[in-house]
Amino acid sequence: MTNEPKSAKRWIIGDPLPSHKLEGQLLPKRLALPIFASDPLSSVAYAPQELLMILLIGGLAFFSFAPWVAAAVILLLVVVVASYRQLVKAYPSGGGDYEVAHKNLGEKAGLVVASALLVDYVLTVAVSVASGVDNIISAIPQLNGFRVEMAIFFVIVLAAVNLRGVRESSKAFAIPTYVFVGSVLLMIVVGLSRTALGAPPVAESADYGVRAESLGQVAVILLLLRAFSSGCSALTGVEAIANGVPAFRRPKIQNAQRTLVLMGGIAITLFAGLTALALISGVHYAENGCELIGFANCDTTPQRSLMAQVASSVFGNNSIMFFVIQAATAAVLLLAANTAFNGFPLLGSVLASDSYAPKAMLTRGDRLVFSNGMILLALAATAILLVYQASLTNLIQLYIIGVFVSFTLGQSGMIVHWVKLLRSGTPDRGAVIRSLTINSFGALFTGVVLIVVTITKFTHGAWLVFVIMPVLYMFMLGINRYYRDVDKEIEVDPITTFGAKGDHAIVLVGRMQKPVLKALDYAIAARHDSLEAVHISIDDEQTLSLEKAWVDQNIAIPLRVIESPYRDVAEPLTAYIKKRREKHGSEVVTVYTPVYIVGHWWEALLHNHKSRRLRNRLMLVHGVTIALVPWLLDSTELIYGRRSRPLPGQERRGDPMRPVFRAHTPSDLPDSRQPNP
Amino acid sequence: MTNEPKSAKRWIIGDPLPSHKLEGQLLPKRLALPIFASDPLSSVAYAPQELLMILLIGGLAFFSFAPWVAAAVILLLVVVVASYRQLVKAYPSGGGDYEVAHKNLGEKAGLVVASALLVDYVLTVAVSVASGVDNIISAIPQLNGFRVEMAIFFVIVLAAVNLRGVRESSKAFAIPTYVFVGSVLLMIVVGLSRTALGAPPVAESADYGVRAESLGQVAVILLLLRAFSSGCSALTGVEAIANGVPAFRRPKIQNAQRTLVLMGGIAITLFAGLTALALISGVHYAENGCELIGFANCDTTPQRSLMAQVASSVFGNNSIMFFVIQAATAAVLLLAANTAFNGFPLLGSVLASDSYAPKAMLTRGDRLVFSNGMILLALAATAILLVYQASLTNLIQLYIIGVFVSFTLGQSGMIVHWVKLLRSGTPDRGAVIRSLTINSFGALFTGVVLIVVTITKFTHGAWLVFVIMPVLYMFMLGINRYYRDVDKEIEVDPITTFGAKGDHAIVLVGRMQKPVLKALDYAIAARHDSLEAVHISIDDEQTLSLEKAWVDQNIAIPLRVIESPYRDVAEPLTAYIKKRREKHGSEVVTVYTPVYIVGHWWEALLHNHKSRRLRNRLMLVHGVTIALVPWLLDSTELIYGRRSRPLPGQERRGDPMRPVFRAHTPSDLPDSRQPNP
Repeated sequence: MTNEPKSAKRWIIGDPLPSHKLEGQLLPKRLALPIFASDPLSSVAYAPQELLMILLIGGLAFFSFAPWVAAAVILLLVVVVASYRQLVKAYPSGGGDYEVAHKNLGEKAGLVVASALLVDYVLTVAVSVASGVDNIISAIPQLNGFRVEMAIFFVIVLAAVNLRGVRESSKAFAIPTYVFVGSVLLMIVVGLSRTALGAPPVAESADYGVRAESLGQVAVILLLLRAFSSGCSALTGVEAIANGVPAFRRPKIQNAQRTLVLMGGIAITLFAGLTALALISGVHYAENGCELIGFANCDTTPQRSLMAQVASSVFGNNSIMFFVIQAATAAVLLLAANTAFNGFPLLGSVLASDSYAPKAMLTRGDRLVFSNGMILLALAATAILLVYQASLTNLIQLYIIGVFVSFTLGQSGMIVHWVKLLRSGTPDRGAVIRSLTINSFGALFTGVVLIVVTITKFTHGAWLVFVIMPVLYMFMLGINRYYRDVDKEIEVDPITTFGAKGDHAIVLVGRMQKPVLKALDYAIAARHDSLEAVHISIDDEQTLSLEKAWVDQNIAIPLRVIESPYRDVAEPLTAYIKKRREKHGSEVVTVYTPVYIVGHWWEALLHNHKSRRLRNRLMLVHGVTIALVPWLLDSTELIYGRRSRPLPGQERRGDPMRPVFRAHTPSDLPDSRQPNP
Repeated sequence: MTNEPKSAKRWIIGDPLPSHKLEGQLLPKRLALPIFASDPLSSVAYAPQELLMILLIGGLAFFSFAPWVAAAVILLLVVVVASYRQLVKAYPSGGGDYEVAHKNLGEKAGLVVASALLVDYVLTVAVSVASGVDNIISAIPQLNGFRVEMAIFFVIVLAAVNLRGVRESSKAFAIPTYVFVGSVLLMIVVGLSRTALGAPPVAESADYGVRAESLGQVAVILLLLRAFSSGCSALTGVEAIANGVPAFRRPKIQNAQRTLVLMGGIAITLFAGLTALALISGVHYAENGCELIGFANCDTTPQRSLMAQVASSVFGNNSIMFFVIQAATAAVLLLAANTAFNGFPLLGSVLASDSYAPKAMLTRGDRLVFSNGMILLALAATAILLVYQASLTNLIQLYIIGVFVSFTLGQSGMIVHWVKLLRSGTPDRGAVIRSLTINSFGALFTGVVLIVVTITKFTHGAWLVFVIMPVLYMFMLGINRYYRDVDKEIEVDPITTFGAKGDHAIVLVGRMQKPVLKALDYAIAARHDSLEAVHISIDDEQTLSLEKAWVDQNIAIPLRVIESPYRDVAEPLTAYIKKRREKHGSEVVTVYTPVYIVGHWWEALLHNHKSRRLRNRLMLVHGVTIALVPWLLDSTELIYGRRSRPLPGQERRGDPMRPVFRAHTPSDLPDSRQPNP
């Protein structure tokens, strides 16, 4: 715990804009590894614990199966890493499983993957935060009463930090991952060495007994499969590197592949080492602490996480290294949650470019778009943490369905990809056949695991995922169909004749104010065929004072006053324009209205609403164009210079440091405060 | 209960658009009375109960004070009605206490009244719904477990009905009020007759005892004052008629005054009769049912409302008339809550026209504005019902502070008004002096009551009102000051020279689609000095296909392609315009962009966001005007013909049936689907 305050502070505040250092650069491997690997590596903080916990349901004897179940998980990890090495080679654009499934298996498979990934991002936040809180409580048990509150607090902090804009490539993000990997590796080495020297570590729960149920053969197999399913949570996040290829330095593919293998190696080492140490030291972790015989105060005291029990058995309880490991574990888990805040809006923009999400999400470089996505993500994660009371064991049940859906469909897509390539008569048939074989293995393995996971977890809560995914799927499909219909509607005819005639301009005048005069000035400059100022009279007194001001200002443009007995502006104006068009034929009428540009968000609530509604009415009138003449209020000076914040997922897209909005210097400021520029 | 299903249905659905009947008409008294009187008359459903309940705290002996306390309330009611008769005469515009205080006592007094009224509208909803639910539960005790849920359900129903648009002047609104007045009057007559004949009704709680505390002299006086304060809740809503004068038929003032007196007479009769019957029949109603000695199952059974106990003692428990009275009472209370949904947005528009609320509220005839107000009101009422668990007794504590603040300041304003009139040398000095005397009495009485109410209720929950009112006050003052500053900022200089030069037009082209061609067509028609089409190239393939289509369509306007290596549209375009202006001098540049007009609200989420953001960026560039060329999607046909729904408070404003948006016939529909009209 000793180094956490500092690391946490650095992590929250971030390196203050080191832009000159990295400007225009891509990620070196030593930064790419921690950025992309915090998600997959953090999984080992909970995977061994969940694996052993399920086995313990069958009784202590089931621990003898643990090495085999762990070996199966490791084998799967090897297969998945090998599969993704192929995917990186074939699709280095960063689209990941969604792109592969979409391109090779068609729209529907792509959308299934997309909905699985969306669910997954929410669960990544929920599971990582829940596990992080678990490890903090393991170090400081006094916090046990605030589990849910802490989890929600961290979600809010993550959302706030990301809404402010956080630069993932800063070194502050690399430190926790390296500390985590280093300290856990050290723990494994020390623990195994002590064992070899005949003084194995002993966990605090080593003496606990457990009430074993006697199980039939089918139940035994089901329990082993469930343990395997839970252990498979170690695989979550492996796809992160495949999505981040554009951010790597050249040669991108080789660097990404090497990082992937390095990450896989570390993950396997940590997973195997932790599982081994837990078995050696005799960690007993149960779904419900009170199932353990000998665990006093099980009602009030939380079970400590497997990570905490191993760390305290190897290094001694409350030793410095124990706190280092707990702090690093919590930090790396929160980093993993942070990756979801980058990935979610990124996926949104990919979906938007394929017309499965509102096109507005496509506008990269717009903070607002990302903000909405992040707020949505934070709300969904908070809701699910509340519903499941931040219980890691319950959340894990939902988690890996989505992961394996996207694994399976991604790998299946790769099979189609390679088969197509073979059919097209590629020169390098050997390599393609090798890749095809690897991905076929990957698809087969992950597909079988998906079935196993579904069977073993469906009744334990995973059914919820099978409800939400189709809803998201239908939603995205609906958006796509809508855009398709509109595109058809606005498709150009083979031949277009341009024939709009006439050119009349109206400047709408409410009161005599500078913005109106600027609009009038611009309308004059545009030299329309005819130009008039129009005032809709609602209040006689106001109209008289305007007419007087019109004369005082000596304005040559005629001011037409239209009476509005019912205090409505839009109706008399549209009636006037329609009448004019009836008389003068179908001319184009340009209506000039000033628009206020404001500085503070709340000012937007106080301006422009009337004129916006008026515009919306006018735009229904045939032949009308609206000319917006902007007027910058003094407060707009605030909006300059605060727009160079980093965007989420920027690093992953390979344009790490480009500020999307360039900072404006004061001399750039359009000075529109005088109507005559 | 027998007639409730039908009446409730009519009330919810309303008379289906009887527009031809009432078109252009103002309210006859027989409709004005129920519309404006449901709020004040419904108060007698809870005022006697709350009065007697407070007296009971002192013990049964305190009931002997009841007639005196009730008489004081009635005297106050007479004074207030007389005072409002004067107010109606002097201010027939419907501005009510806010207008009077604002015009005569200045801005600050006006804002105090406004904040009191805003709080009051929320509490009118909460108190009326809580009391309505109370009376429903009194008839159907099985619903006792769902008190809060029912209250919130009714708030949601009221909000939904009003959001859909409800025509207050429909006869369905008059029925419950008349049934309520008629059946309660009948009950009073029957009850008093039975008493005169020597067979007085006996309430179910007549035999209950109560643990009386022995009180000192000060405590006795305080308790009597508290009872009086609670009884004063009978006065809430009296001001409704004063706000509704414009809706009356001519002679407006006389008709409004007569209706006011009629309403006052009925209210006094009902209040006095109910209090008398409650005392005769021996109703014992305590703050907490378990304080009553002899009330078995006080934990699980709710006390029945005073209205229910009197009705069942007079007509017999579960008799038809008992259910009629309970149903009519609940219905009239819900109607009273409904009035707040009309008054709240109306007050908002008055405040907006004085620049104390966002100007957007001023746009009468826009449903959206009212919707926001109604949603706000519903949320506030729901929150307060949740916090106070729909407990009438607790809510009443907050209620009448606001009422008496606006009474006192309104009457004080009237004094100033009459004094001014006297000083100006009015011919009719006698009448003015009489009015002055009446309003002085009114101000004095209501002012004293305000002090009494504040002293007796402050610690019982009313402090919350004293927190919220200043917040609202500061909020409205802040908005006013902001608008004042902006007005100063945009004030015209004494002399304005128009001098904008140049006239270049840019049509922004993304893909080759009809809306773009329409924009191009309009730009050509406007005959700018120079015109070019500009395409920001993000995707080479897309650009090539556009260039090909440009040739295919045989368009004479040059297409300029600007490369955007970073996939951003705004930055290259603003850079281009700035560069152009540097070269060509400070010309006006008009940028044409198409705007999609959609039919469904959700379509708005799927269109225009990119171009809106682009516009917002472009408007920061000096010299730029944006020309919006509307494109109506097919779905817009939906938006015609559904806009003639009544607006809240329309009746009260005196323009009862004018559809603010006239229904468009299909032939009016601008057919903008071809670029050449």
